[in-house]
Amino acid sequence: MTVAMAGAPAMAADAQAGRARALQCQACHGLDGKSKLPEAPHLAGQNETYLVKALKDYKTGARKDEMMNLMAKPLTDKDIANLAAFYSGLKP
Amino acid sequence: MTVAMAGAPAMAADAQAGRARALQCQACHGLDGKSKLPEAPHLAGQNETYLVKALKDYKTGARKDEMMNLMAKPLTDKDIANLAAFYSGLKP
Repeated sequence: MTVAMAGAPAMAADAQAGRARALQCQACHGLDGKSKLPEAPHLAGQNETYLVKALKDYKTGARKDEMMNLMAKPLTDKDIANLAAFYSGLKP
Repeated sequence: MTVAMAGAPAMAADAQAGRARALQCQACHGLDGKSKLPEAPHLAGQNETYLVKALKDYKTGARKDEMMNLMAKPLTDKDIANLAAFYSGLKP
């Protein structure tokens, strides 16, 4: 039986899959989560819940940034959960 | 003679003054820049340029968050520069 885990998107998150998805993030945020540009935030060790919200808001356009709106658009909820699990798990 | 430093807001930033201004931030972000709530990001060691942009966007409403729009509204450019200098200078 599959039980929907509403409100707990991180429970099924896969940091390894997040790392693979993060290849498209690394030019600005690094695969180590340390920003490569002054205008890009560091992500290593950032709060998982905050990262999920940031990516969802970029995807929907509720939060506006030319680059991030483009990057987040194709992400699924699963991608977002995995990316947040990956970056939040890195050492700042 | 006073020379306007357009585009270099951080040059005159005062991290000590930023610390004093950060007393209103600490319930969520801590005076150590370590978030006290899952939905609030850690700020310690975050990029200064990114922090300035975040606060300006919250102040203008370009970036929307009920709490942060309220908190950022009264901040001057100088307050924002000082807060960004303070939080970016903390150890993550």
